[in-house]
Amino acid sequence: MVETKDIESGSAGEDHSEEEEEAAMEKAFVDTAVPSWRQQITIRSMLTSLVLSLVFNVIVCKLNLTTGVIPSLNVAAGLLGFAMVKSWTVLVEKCGLLKQPFTRQENTVIQTCVVASSGIAFSSGTASYLLAMSPQIAGAESAAINVKELSIGWMIGYLFVVSFVGLFSIVPLRKVMILKYKLSYPSGTATAHLINSFHTPKGAKLAKKQVWCLFKSFVGSFFFACFKWFFAAGDGCGFDSFPTFGLHALKQRFNFDFSATYIGVGMICPYMVNVSLLVGAILSWGVMWPIIQTKEGSWYEAGLKGSDIHGIQGYRVFIAISMMLGDGLFHVVYMVIVTVKSFMAQQSEQRHVNNRTEGGQLIQDYNDERRREYFLKDQIPNAAAIIGYVLLAALSVGLIPVIFQQLKWYHILVAYIVAPILAFCNAYGCGLTDWSLASNYGKLAILIFSSWVGLEHGGIIAGLASCGVMFSIVSTASDLMQDFKTGYLTLSSPRSMFFGQVYGTALGCIMSPLVFWFFYKAYNVAGEGSSYPAPFAVTYRAISKLGVEGFSSLPKHCLTLMIVFFVSAVAINLLIEILRKCDIKIYKFIPSPMCMAIPFYLGAYFAIDMCVGSLILFLWERQNKKGAKEYGPAVASGLICGDSLWGIPSAVLALSGVNSPMCMKFLSSSVKT
Amino acid sequence: MVETKDIESGSAGEDHSEEEEEAAMEKAFVDTAVPSWRQQITIRSMLTSLVLSLVFNVIVCKLNLTTGVIPSLNVAAGLLGFAMVKSWTVLVEKCGLLKQPFTRQENTVIQTCVVASSGIAFSSGTASYLLAMSPQIAGAESAAINVKELSIGWMIGYLFVVSFVGLFSIVPLRKVMILKYKLSYPSGTATAHLINSFHTPKGAKLAKKQVWCLFKSFVGSFFFACFKWFFAAGDGCGFDSFPTFGLHALKQRFNFDFSATYIGVGMICPYMVNVSLLVGAILSWGVMWPIIQTKEGSWYEAGLKGSDIHGIQGYRVFIAISMMLGDGLFHVVYMVIVTVKSFMAQQSEQRHVNNRTEGGQLIQDYNDERRREYFLKDQIPNAAAIIGYVLLAALSVGLIPVIFQQLKWYHILVAYIVAPILAFCNAYGCGLTDWSLASNYGKLAILIFSSWVGLEHGGIIAGLASCGVMFSIVSTASDLMQDFKTGYLTLSSPRSMFFGQVYGTALGCIMSPLVFWFFYKAYNVAGEGSSYPAPFAVTYRAISKLGVEGFSSLPKHCLTLMIVFFVSAVAINLLIEILRKCDIKIYKFIPSPMCMAIPFYLGAYFAIDMCVGSLILFLWERQNKKGAKEYGPAVASGLICGDSLWGIPSAVLALSGVNSPMCMKFLSSSVKT
Repeated sequence: MVETKDIESGSAGEDHSEEEEEAAMEKAFVDTAVPSWRQQITIRSMLTSLVLSLVFNVIVCKLNLTTGVIPSLNVAAGLLGFAMVKSWTVLVEKCGLLKQPFTRQENTVIQTCVVASSGIAFSSGTASYLLAMSPQIAGAESAAINVKELSIGWMIGYLFVVSFVGLFSIVPLRKVMILKYKLSYPSGTATAHLINSFHTPKGAKLAKKQVWCLFKSFVGSFFFACFKWFFAAGDGCGFDSFPTFGLHALKQRFNFDFSATYIGVGMICPYMVNVSLLVGAILSWGVMWPIIQTKEGSWYEAGLKGSDIHGIQGYRVFIAISMMLGDGLFHVVYMVIVTVKSFMAQQSEQRHVNNRTEGGQLIQDYNDERRREYFLKDQIPNAAAIIGYVLLAALSVGLIPVIFQQLKWYHILVAYIVAPILAFCNAYGCGLTDWSLASNYGKLAILIFSSWVGLEHGGIIAGLASCGVMFSIVSTASDLMQDFKTGYLTLSSPRSMFFGQVYGTALGCIMSPLVFWFFYKAYNVAGEGSSYPAPFAVTYRAISKLGVEGFSSLPKHCLTLMIVFFVSAVAINLLIEILRKCDIKIYKFIPSPMCMAIPFYLGAYFAIDMCVGSLILFLWERQNKKGAKEYGPAVASGLICGDSLWGIPSAVLALSGVNSPMCMKFLSSSVKT
Repeated sequence: MVETKDIESGSAGEDHSEEEEEAAMEKAFVDTAVPSWRQQITIRSMLTSLVLSLVFNVIVCKLNLTTGVIPSLNVAAGLLGFAMVKSWTVLVEKCGLLKQPFTRQENTVIQTCVVASSGIAFSSGTASYLLAMSPQIAGAESAAINVKELSIGWMIGYLFVVSFVGLFSIVPLRKVMILKYKLSYPSGTATAHLINSFHTPKGAKLAKKQVWCLFKSFVGSFFFACFKWFFAAGDGCGFDSFPTFGLHALKQRFNFDFSATYIGVGMICPYMVNVSLLVGAILSWGVMWPIIQTKEGSWYEAGLKGSDIHGIQGYRVFIAISMMLGDGLFHVVYMVIVTVKSFMAQQSEQRHVNNRTEGGQLIQDYNDERRREYFLKDQIPNAAAIIGYVLLAALSVGLIPVIFQQLKWYHILVAYIVAPILAFCNAYGCGLTDWSLASNYGKLAILIFSSWVGLEHGGIIAGLASCGVMFSIVSTASDLMQDFKTGYLTLSSPRSMFFGQVYGTALGCIMSPLVFWFFYKAYNVAGEGSSYPAPFAVTYRAISKLGVEGFSSLPKHCLTLMIVFFVSAVAINLLIEILRKCDIKIYKFIPSPMCMAIPFYLGAYFAIDMCVGSLILFLWERQNKKGAKEYGPAVASGLICGDSLWGIPSAVLALSGVNSPMCMKFLSSSVKT
């Protein structure tokens, strides 16, 4: 899975006028009292979080099952959270019953909670490592020990056990990361700016208009999705299989499928992500697969099913994996180097910085002073954190082998000893570059643990299960630190932030499997030709297989191609970094290997949707730069939310056996009916 | 056929700021020399006219063959004419070769010529009375004497003979109509304002932007039409049969068929026209026809073909005709009353007016003085006009019986004696209300002449042919007077205007049959389920049949229904006039019977397209009233032009036997393939 905000690293803080505004920020709030941490957690905010968590869980689940490309939904969450509580308080105020005004600290708690909960939807792997264990993905040939039937019970249990550990692993380091090292955490900072702006009069006005924009595009997108439903009576029916570029192109999965979701995603993602996807799609489905398909019978057995991993599907999956692994490995190594270098530089510079700031800017100091004060006011004792971690890890070590007989207690123990180090690395790197590498650590964990356990002892399941352990810890740790940064900048108490995370995580652990289960039962998830192909489930299982079987079972020449693409991924990234260092601007126009690899498996259709989104944004920006900047994310979020939420009524209809009334079918004119 | 600008009569001159601007108009042009009438006619303007005539002939022909609803294309013609000559002169000027600047008089000549030529496309009846003679419309049961095979030769000859007479019939009266009675001619006045504005610096700037707008929507619409073509491999394929409201609604011709043309038409037509169409569609296809269809076997014979006039089709056609005739007759009578009343009032008031204006507004006087001067400068001798009329009429009397053996010379003679009176009536009425009733006179002529000649002697063909004679004279006469008004307001010479008309008419007489022939050969025009149903050909033949056969051949209860709708049409119009007189504003919300009748035959689809156009304009106006007013007509014209001009490559493809590659088919989910 790819969180696309990760791609454009180091772009925050470029806008100078915003920086100036930010510099005077706390002055604007000088007369606003900061509520105590208990008051920051209100019933209304918890209810709002609950509703929004559900909404975003549905959205993320749908995105995960369709392509696995997740855009940053922070703006949507921020706007919706603000709109809900604000309209509630305005309503109550009119009745004269308002006891407590809506503060930005409360808003931050909601945001933290929603982000944590949808973070779980992302890291819970319902569409990746967990689904990869199921018989559908495994296929008939897998031994029983390497398959685990999904069930809502053990999934929730497993998530509860693994998801909270990450929170405790990193809490003690918050002061070091945020106060001492002053890491930037671009996403957390952006969220804080967003929330701060909502609570200024000018920002509130803009937010109102943005919400209205979001609402309109939401309604439009919802009803368009509803409209599309009427024409999708069967497989190959409806707008999904609209042969925009002809039937031949459709067969190679090149078509524009009128998906409002991915148009919206394309509007949120940086241009380069969309271009990379398109380049990858053209390279794979336009060039490579057609060529490889001509070798049927020679490179691989003829007459295999399209979904057989020993046929063309194998090339698709494994070449994509090699490229992702190459990209991931490069970034892990790169991040370690950056982290170590910056860490050492920090240590030696610390004293100088202290001397410098004493005579420095007064306004910035005022901001810092207030923020420091509130950040240090409510403490979370280190002892509590450490005890929490140990207890939860012990629980995990005890329980996970019960859920997965394939894993032994010492496997988990090893994971929990290594994990905090990786979590720190990731949180630190993320603070510097906004780039969370959680899914890469997860993939590496699959390779290591599955080959450790071995095929006969259920290595595939073991690998996937330990991926979850690693993924969760590393991912939640960096999320939490982002939230602490947001809290720091909005004068929210670390305690309320931590509470928000815990509450959100709990919500996520329950909702994420439930929402997934809903889709899983309603649709033919990961089936051939399904609209929910769950690409990462297939990919993760293939990685795990690679771990236990090695390269022996690959089709002919597949290993060569994998090596080529692995090396290319590393080389491209190396090139980007070198060009960036030399300040040669061309690096901005080199596609990202990670993004290129996604359509290798899926096809071009969503890349085309996303490029349409890019095009819309581009034209809008050319016409009205300010308008596009202010309203673009709102419109895009509305498109995503509307289309995704139609998933609920649509799934209900599917579950209750109601079929679409019509089939829009596309026939070649030579085979007219 | 309906020219929709006719519906909203008396709306011109409401805008006060425009009136003020207009009052100072000639002051703005005080330093601009007026070229002599020979200089107003240039080669570049004649070439431009030629190109634009072709374009508008294609557009009007397509509109005629699809629904017969023709919006006012003056803005499009004005913008395109201005843009073409202007860019040409700018180019030549840059090369230092410009001999003569582009004047508004030259522009007026182009406009006159293009309007005259597309006026012929409308009045030439290639989609109505001429097509009605063909075997396709007649059906197998008609006797040979009541059918005439179409051929490009006699059509052009016939048009040349009948189309020029109108010009000469009314020329002598121009001074009375424009200088003495000061009739307003709203369309001609609006065109003059448009042209005048193009030649002011501010107006030229706006025009440039409008042309850009038109161009963009043109390109969009053209490529969308091209895109749609790919999916329309056979009958019932493609976007035309998109069941937007379900398959059941499609059967009753309720669907949105993504036609950019009719969205554009809807944006140009007044809201009430579109609403009337929709009301008519719901009344007929939503209520009446389904009810009548349940009486199959009792009211009319069961098992007839859908296109059989003795079946359900008869109800559709004859009820529509009765409503149109009721509406038409009301307006003819009403117009005669208004004309006579205003004429008498004019005569008695004339002296008072003369006294009043002498001490009146100075600026208005300056305008008047200059305009009067140029209007009277170049004369067209009355003798020439009368001799022209007599000669052409004599030619007509001699030639038409050769083309149509069914008509005798005395029939034509009678027509040419009555016609100038009707032409004057219509031109005068049109000057007052902007409402040309030419097609109504044509319909009445069908009834009279076909019953005079009788069925056995070819009354049907005789009626249709004499319709052409009447229609042409009456229509061109009022068009010419509109043009004289435009010329008067732009200081153009009556001679150059007359020349423009003659040139345009000649172009129209050649192009209109040629363009029609192109469509006629490429498509199954008026066939069942065709995208070119040519509704007015069917209607006109049915009127003619009514004239020769009386009501005897109608299906059961059809006469009763016809009487009901005839009376309703008169009553609705009467109600509107009474309410208007009493100044009760509700009259604006009463639908027009003429518009309601059109979908009776065709179905709701184009009414829905047009309402979508209305909706777009309405939302646009709500967002940005000024922008919508300035750019709405340009965007709409672009939509119409682009979609219609795709008709040319599409017809070429059809003629050369190239079929669309795909068929987008809509199947009920119970009969999946």
